[in-house]
Amino acid sequence: MEKVAIESFAMNGGVGDNSYANNSSLQRSGFEATRSLIHEAIMEKLDIKHLTSGNSFRITDLGCSAGPNTFAAVQDIVEAIEQKHQSEGTQLPLPEFHVYFNDQVSNDFNTLFASLPLERRYFATGVPGSFHTRLFPEKSINLVHSFAALPWLSKVPEEVVNIHSLCWNKGRIHYTNAPVEVKEAYKGQFAKDMMRFFNARAKEVVHGGLMALCFPCLPDGQPNSHFLINVLFDLLGSALMDMVQMGRVDEAKVASFNIPFYASSTKEVVTLVETNGRFTIERMETLGSPILQAREGSECYSKTTRACTEGLIREHFGHDDEIINELFDRLTKKISDSDSILEESYMTYVFVLLKRKED
Amino acid sequence: MEKVAIESFAMNGGVGDNSYANNSSLQRSGFEATRSLIHEAIMEKLDIKHLTSGNSFRITDLGCSAGPNTFAAVQDIVEAIEQKHQSEGTQLPLPEFHVYFNDQVSNDFNTLFASLPLERRYFATGVPGSFHTRLFPEKSINLVHSFAALPWLSKVPEEVVNIHSLCWNKGRIHYTNAPVEVKEAYKGQFAKDMMRFFNARAKEVVHGGLMALCFPCLPDGQPNSHFLINVLFDLLGSALMDMVQMGRVDEAKVASFNIPFYASSTKEVVTLVETNGRFTIERMETLGSPILQAREGSECYSKTTRACTEGLIREHFGHDDEIINELFDRLTKKISDSDSILEESYMTYVFVLLKRKED
Repeated sequence: MEKVAIESFAMNGGVGDNSYANNSSLQRSGFEATRSLIHEAIMEKLDIKHLTSGNSFRITDLGCSAGPNTFAAVQDIVEAIEQKHQSEGTQLPLPEFHVYFNDQVSNDFNTLFASLPLERRYFATGVPGSFHTRLFPEKSINLVHSFAALPWLSKVPEEVVNIHSLCWNKGRIHYTNAPVEVKEAYKGQFAKDMMRFFNARAKEVVHGGLMALCFPCLPDGQPNSHFLINVLFDLLGSALMDMVQMGRVDEAKVASFNIPFYASSTKEVVTLVETNGRFTIERMETLGSPILQAREGSECYSKTTRACTEGLIREHFGHDDEIINELFDRLTKKISDSDSILEESYMTYVFVLLKRKED
Repeated sequence: MEKVAIESFAMNGGVGDNSYANNSSLQRSGFEATRSLIHEAIMEKLDIKHLTSGNSFRITDLGCSAGPNTFAAVQDIVEAIEQKHQSEGTQLPLPEFHVYFNDQVSNDFNTLFASLPLERRYFATGVPGSFHTRLFPEKSINLVHSFAALPWLSKVPEEVVNIHSLCWNKGRIHYTNAPVEVKEAYKGQFAKDMMRFFNARAKEVVHGGLMALCFPCLPDGQPNSHFLINVLFDLLGSALMDMVQMGRVDEAKVASFNIPFYASSTKEVVTLVETNGRFTIERMETLGSPILQAREGSECYSKTTRACTEGLIREHFGHDDEIINELFDRLTKKISDSDSILEESYMTYVFVLLKRKED
């Protein structure tokens, strides 16, 4: 079994006010845009032999979090496959579906399992572990889905927290508005992680099997600093630095904290797939997502940021509810004061459909 | 997908003082006794073709709870299979192991996943749901293991809580020392549940696949009322009735509460397997487990009973910590005062190895 040290990050669990389950509407809008693309992908690109081999059809959602987007995605996939099966007019019965919901060990699987749709047409399992490592036996998966998960790195690049490095990212928590070396360190970590991701999946996905991946990603040539997620992380860093100035948070603590998230460009994604060489790109689309106005969006953007980063922040800064609440109240305020910044911002996803090559 | 209303019961989660993880030493002694039997079963009865088909080897532990017994069981099974593979001298590589840990949706999978051994030689997944229903695609499982789970019924037999029935079990919470009709109702529910269990597994287990089941079970002709688990449930019922008399618990609440656990006899098990007809009995053994003295065992027996029943009790009587703590303090006291009862008690498990017939 492959052994790689992976730091575990997961979205907020449960179904409470700050949970990912209740604060994933931002992701939902990107997700909605991919639904018809996944349907088309299955109708056009899925090889009928996967549906008639007599085995079950195995689907995994990588980085599923605790719902509800994952259930909608799986439901879409199952329906599309049923329609594909019907359209082929084969006499062979539809295979049974086996769905593997994957996320970090620290993900809230209890909530995920408790919210599984009762009327589902598949057998459900949960797979704890990082998708940067092997998760399944060889040639056991027919279709991989992953939404909004791939930009999360297996760890913060080491240089960024090295006080002796040019990349030391003091006073910031992300590469937005940082020296170019910091962004390059993130880019390097993303490339390493993606290569591990592709190598693991190349083992696990059957020949001809599909991977439908969708995640925040910049169109080529677009500026990093106006990408919405980067903007939000920059404002969060700025809120933390305000708290340093007020003596509420230790400066050294902020200097050693960075968010392990890298928004690549579509061009980088193409290069990584081609360098890996195990998958062909069957389709690639850039999807835009509307930006809310500052006043209107401040609460939603702040809560979404919290659902995605609170676990990291607690691990690093400690479990002081007062500090955490103050931090995100400050973030909400900063967003609502950032009309001109949000007006320049944009949010895009890439949808890429990959097929496992024959060896 | 099969739809059956299953009431969800799970052992206490977490790793705290009252958790199943820390209060399963009683089960552990029965479990230890089965280890060599499982090893022998695999060496003697596992068909080598399952190890050389080129697919992964799929194992499930049904009713796994939150550990740690389940990890030890799986580790034993994997080691035995590796030894079997080596002893056959085949040139074909060992298959990869895919292990499915199953328990009720309400089981604490978060704790289970967090305690997975880091050095494991298998891919791990969690499967939420009742083993009285289908859990896996057809012909997808090579080996089923289940320890101490099968006597837990899918529900309390309806007659037992019907005020108009001869079986109405007022003033008790189990069939121990109840009219014979109450025990017969439990026996009928167990037979229905086991038939559903065998039918579901008959679909899922590959031909020639094995089921190693071990659970509390009476040797033929032994008295129900001296079976340790039944004794403990009887004392728990008696503690509840004491609390009724003191006005601490509502009498009607106790009248409608029963523990859905049935300790069958080995003869009943044989009859059920034969009636089902899909599996052959390859081996069957009765294993004895030592009984602690009243004073020595009272704390351990009380905590074990609590880990297994607290979820049920809270669901029925409410989440009042004071009441729950008092109830189990009373149980501890009752056990320590029951020297003569414990001297007459006995605890046995059945180990049964089944093989899926060719159709």
